[in-house]
Amino acid sequence: MGLNIYLSGEIHTDWREQIVEGAAGLDVTFNAPVTDHAASDDCGVAILGAEPNKYWHDHKGAMVNAIRIRKGIADADVVVVRFGEKYKQWNAAFDAGYAAALGKSIIVLNPPEHQHALKEVHAAALAVAETPAQVVEVLRYVLTGALPAGQSAAAE
Amino acid sequence: MGLNIYLSGEIHTDWREQIVEGAAGLDVTFNAPVTDHAASDDCGVAILGAEPNKYWHDHKGAMVNAIRIRKGIADADVVVVRFGEKYKQWNAAFDAGYAAALGKSIIVLNPPEHQHALKEVHAAALAVAETPAQVVEVLRYVLTGALPAGQSAAAE
Amino acid sequence: MGLNIYLSGEIHTDWREQIVEGAAGLDVTFNAPVTDHAASDDCGVAILGAEPNKYWHDHKGAMVNAIRIRKGIADADVVVVRFGEKYKQWNAAFDAGYAAALGKSIIVLNPPEHQHALKEVHAAALAVAETPAQVVEVLRYVLTGALPAGQSAAAE
Amino acid sequence: MGLNIYLSGEIHTDWREQIVEGAAGLDVTFNAPVTDHAASDDCGVAILGAEPNKYWHDHKGAMVNAIRIRKGIADADVVVVRFGEKYKQWNAAFDAGYAAALGKSIIVLNPPEHQHALKEVHAAALAVAETPAQVVEVLRYVLTGALPAGQSAAAE
Amino acid sequence: MGLNIYLSGEIHTDWREQIVEGAAGLDVTFNAPVTDHAASDDCGVAILGAEPNKYWHDHKGAMVNAIRIRKGIADADVVVVRFGEKYKQWNAAFDAGYAAALGKSIIVLNPPEHQHALKEVHAAALAVAETPAQVVEVLRYVLTGALPAGQSAAAE
Amino acid sequence: MGLNIYLSGEIHTDWREQIVEGAAGLDVTFNAPVTDHAASDDCGVAILGAEPNKYWHDHKGAMVNAIRIRKGIADADVVVVRFGEKYKQWNAAFDAGYAAALGKSIIVLNPPEHQHALKEVHAAALAVAETPAQVVEVLRYVLTGALPAGQSAAAE
Amino acid sequence: MGLNIYLSGEIHTDWREQIVEGAAGLDVTFNAPVTDHAASDDCGVAILGAEPNKYWHDHKGAMVNAIRIRKGIADADVVVVRFGEKYKQWNAAFDAGYAAALGKSIIVLNPPEHQHALKEVHAAALAVAETPAQVVEVLRYVLTGALPAGQSAAAE
Amino acid sequence: MGLNIYLSGEIHTDWREQIVEGAAGLDVTFNAPVTDHAASDDCGVAILGAEPNKYWHDHKGAMVNAIRIRKGIADADVVVVRFGEKYKQWNAAFDAGYAAALGKSIIVLNPPEHQHALKEVHAAALAVAETPAQVVEVLRYVLTGALPAGQSAAAE
Repeated sequence: MGLNIYLSGEIHTDWREQIVEGAAGLDVTFNAPVTDHAASDDCGVAILGAEPNKYWHDHKGAMVNAIRIRKGIADADVVVVRFGEKYKQWNAAFDAGYAAALGKSIIVLNPPEHQHALKEVHAAALAVAETPAQVVEVLRYVLTGALPAGQSAAAE
Repeated sequence: MGLNIYLSGEIHTDWREQIVEGAAGLDVTFNAPVTDHAASDDCGVAILGAEPNKYWHDHKGAMVNAIRIRKGIADADVVVVRFGEKYKQWNAAFDAGYAAALGKSIIVLNPPEHQHALKEVHAAALAVAETPAQVVEVLRYVLTGALPAGQSAAAE
Repeated sequence: MGLNIYLSGEIHTDWREQIVEGAAGLDVTFNAPVTDHAASDDCGVAILGAEPNKYWHDHKGAMVNAIRIRKGIADADVVVVRFGEKYKQWNAAFDAGYAAALGKSIIVLNPPEHQHALKEVHAAALAVAETPAQVVEVLRYVLTGALPAGQSAAAE
Repeated sequence: MGLNIYLSGEIHTDWREQIVEGAAGLDVTFNAPVTDHAASDDCGVAILGAEPNKYWHDHKGAMVNAIRIRKGIADADVVVVRFGEKYKQWNAAFDAGYAAALGKSIIVLNPPEHQHALKEVHAAALAVAETPAQVVEVLRYVLTGALPAGQSAAAE
Repeated sequence: MGLNIYLSGEIHTDWREQIVEGAAGLDVTFNAPVTDHAASDDCGVAILGAEPNKYWHDHKGAMVNAIRIRKGIADADVVVVRFGEKYKQWNAAFDAGYAAALGKSIIVLNPPEHQHALKEVHAAALAVAETPAQVVEVLRYVLTGALPAGQSAAAE
Repeated sequence: MGLNIYLSGEIHTDWREQIVEGAAGLDVTFNAPVTDHAASDDCGVAILGAEPNKYWHDHKGAMVNAIRIRKGIADADVVVVRFGEKYKQWNAAFDAGYAAALGKSIIVLNPPEHQHALKEVHAAALAVAETPAQVVEVLRYVLTGALPAGQSAAAE
Repeated sequence: MGLNIYLSGEIHTDWREQIVEGAAGLDVTFNAPVTDHAASDDCGVAILGAEPNKYWHDHKGAMVNAIRIRKGIADADVVVVRFGEKYKQWNAAFDAGYAAALGKSIIVLNPPEHQHALKEVHAAALAVAETPAQVVEVLRYVLTGALPAGQSAAAE
Repeated sequence: MGLNIYLSGEIHTDWREQIVEGAAGLDVTFNAPVTDHAASDDCGVAILGAEPNKYWHDHKGAMVNAIRIRKGIADADVVVVRFGEKYKQWNAAFDAGYAAALGKSIIVLNPPEHQHALKEVHAAALAVAETPAQVVEVLRYVLTGALPAGQSAAAE
């Protein structure tokens, strides 16, 4: 068994790199949105023509980005959705809802202070983590059955 | 043709009432989440037993609320998603993503200052409105073909 | 058995009225797009705000109209797609493809001179008619088993 | 991430070759209908037997071609639909509708004079291009995040 | 609970009438193909124009009949497929396969001498009956829990 | 909003009656399997002919019962699965898995001593109750927003 | 583009071998049912235990064979259904209906004398052939665009 | 044709190893849940944080395990569900129901004394075996058409 994983959400920290590096050696493939903020905002007008109106500037870009995002989520076995500490991050919650309706397994990664505001998103998740390392351990366990080093489990 | 409409999102203003009243006389039915904030937060523990841990307190409630929300969206022809001026509102964006993956027609209702942050949600919508009255006019046009009073349209 | 029928395509002649009147007494319901050309073109800007750019003017309207069209096709048992003698009529062919992918029963109504250009659309249809009266007779037969008056059928 | 792309529509110019060549080096695979006009028209009767009636001559061919077209669209992540300057091109619009109902990402490629007549098709697209080079740039960005050379993007 | 039932297959005996009459008083609705053999064969050409070639004569009719058959099966909770003693009856087996792929509950009604030849069809059925009265008793039990008069059942 | 509810599982106590009576006045409809144990075991052979082999005796009955069960679950918005204190009850767990794969909202009703053995079933549920009264209260809240009498909720 | 093809139906002549050999060099893979008649009839009881009753003997075998048949059709892009000159061949018609409901491209291969009896099956097909060589030519054209040697096509 | 097989159920005997070894040389791939009982029970809390309440301890683990189980069943062509002699084994029956609703081919493996209690599960299966060797022989026959050594089959 291998897993295809889509890494959705916050683009300002290195959480994706931490997960990809932590998962080295596992039978996993990763996809993600374009994480270059400027390119992501401007891709529509840079390729398809300028728009004086900011709404359509954003709209053209969001639709081009949707080609990649939809493909990434549709192909995924697991969607990891990261909520950072700042910004509205409605695109992350949107991806979570989209993935939930497609029946994808969802792992949410968020700081504990967002717990109450994320309760509806958590209700659609199979795991809620606070650190990228926990996400890696979930993937490792799912693929190999191995628990984190130092954890002993006792059957009842 | 009649339309079943789910009104998702912000629960602190009377936007739902404005739409329901404005749509009087149209062939529409409306559904919505439980909008009593306290009941919505506590329904899980009130019915199924207390939880000392806030996460599980919230989780139990969010899952009970999901019974209503999923039914409401699944039955809907149109999902109106309202973003207010405050709070994280990740549940609204989650509903929008969920509705998008199911192929529902989406109308987003938000103040203009949220435009940039909502661009991925807007990219999945068929209409973006700033006022409840505009939502009503969209519904009226879709059902009857009538444009707002005072609007003249000229065929080319 | 009753049939819900969506009448897609050309809006410049009274073919819809002919079918609706001809089908009087049958267990049928009909839906159609908004056929007021001016309203259909301008609905987006009339309700949601003017656009100086013609592309976005058209886009806003086409997306609002899509709410009605998608609902009409999704609910239909039979989609009748009418191609008239003039104009590009790409929206009609688009509706036919959309209906085909959803597995709807399709009846195409077109003048004989369009036969070659419509061969891919015809290949997805269960009936190809040249007159609204033929469409009515197909509906009458499907619902009641009755052939047109004056037609005698002999079993082999 | 790789993309499978179906190139639908106009067969009289070399737009497909331009896209395939432009996309050299990207992780893409392309499919397309049979673009030999004569073979495409006559395949049914050439293989399965002559038909004196032009309608059935065309019908047999259109159905054989449908085997290839349906496979091509069903397998595609992205469907590019090209409208040229001449002919009815209802097959292109039909493919666009078919792809839209399957939830495929659609890129429309058309000359600007067709903008108004294509507004319903555009409403189902994630990108609207005027040149094959723009289609290539969309694919490059979606796969690599790279914007066209000479385009600078500035994050807000 | 009510059941919508499609009665597919043999059209030369009164098995449909026996089932409909036997089911009087149950919460059931029935649909069926057009059972007038001559009308069913000729409907295509009678409405849409004569065909000198017998294949296309038949084809036009079969496609018009398909509008009714697909609707009947798509709406059904239970599809009863009757095989009589004579003829090829490939349409009956085709309907059974079509219904099986849609996940419909299938009841097969056939004389015992066809048992071996129908084993693949039986493998997709939830009940195999030899008489219309048995079909009625299955429907009565499914809807009311009542077993046939004179049958005593003893719990273990 | 109304809810269609399927009551699956244990047939030896009056839990179904308690829920139906408790839900009086709510906009709900209920379905359930045949709960007459003897009839349920023998329906196949009583209608379709005796089987000397106990396996096929049981098989014929289980397949006839499946007509009702599949219809009941397919039509349901909510599936309540009750596990009693005795017996294997694999049919209840089977129904829960079947409902889960169809995306139904699941409420599990079981005595606390079965908690550990049911953890995989609970992981697919939106509510886990210990008494029929709790199930009623969940339904009442979902439909009306009302919490149980005596429960006070305080918004944060 | 490659094609996966399921070869359903008659098992008494070498039509499968003719198609497989004729298609040498094309990008195709073939699947088929077990065509050893004796093994196919007896597989159930040979592996899972004898049945004195012929119905259950057949049933056990038909269900084991269904594992292979369902997989073969589910994976196929094209289902070729062969009707020979003898026997009931209801399994072939059942496969055709099953494939039709899944939206598979269907090619029917039958002698001309069965034309009328197969009209409902033909109505679901994209090609109707009389010889295995024609099936090969359809596959060759679909994959390569090449018409049979000696056939000249002239564009209009 | 190759088969992907998910081995669900009992984890206390070596039935999985027997099947995997017996199937050596066949074109099969196998998946299974984590079969280390202690790890399976504790994975949730070991990775995502301790829970003092046994229900949530179990719940966290069951949800993490669900990532693997859902992937395994979703990818499978055949789901083998093993019921052992002891324990409730509701997770096995749940997997069977889940697989049935997805249309997977199901093979049930159980000791004969559980026959009556499993009749609803058997009604959704294509084969019911008592030994791992029988499961291997079913797989061998499905993939190669070969019956067990020493079994002679005679066509009728």
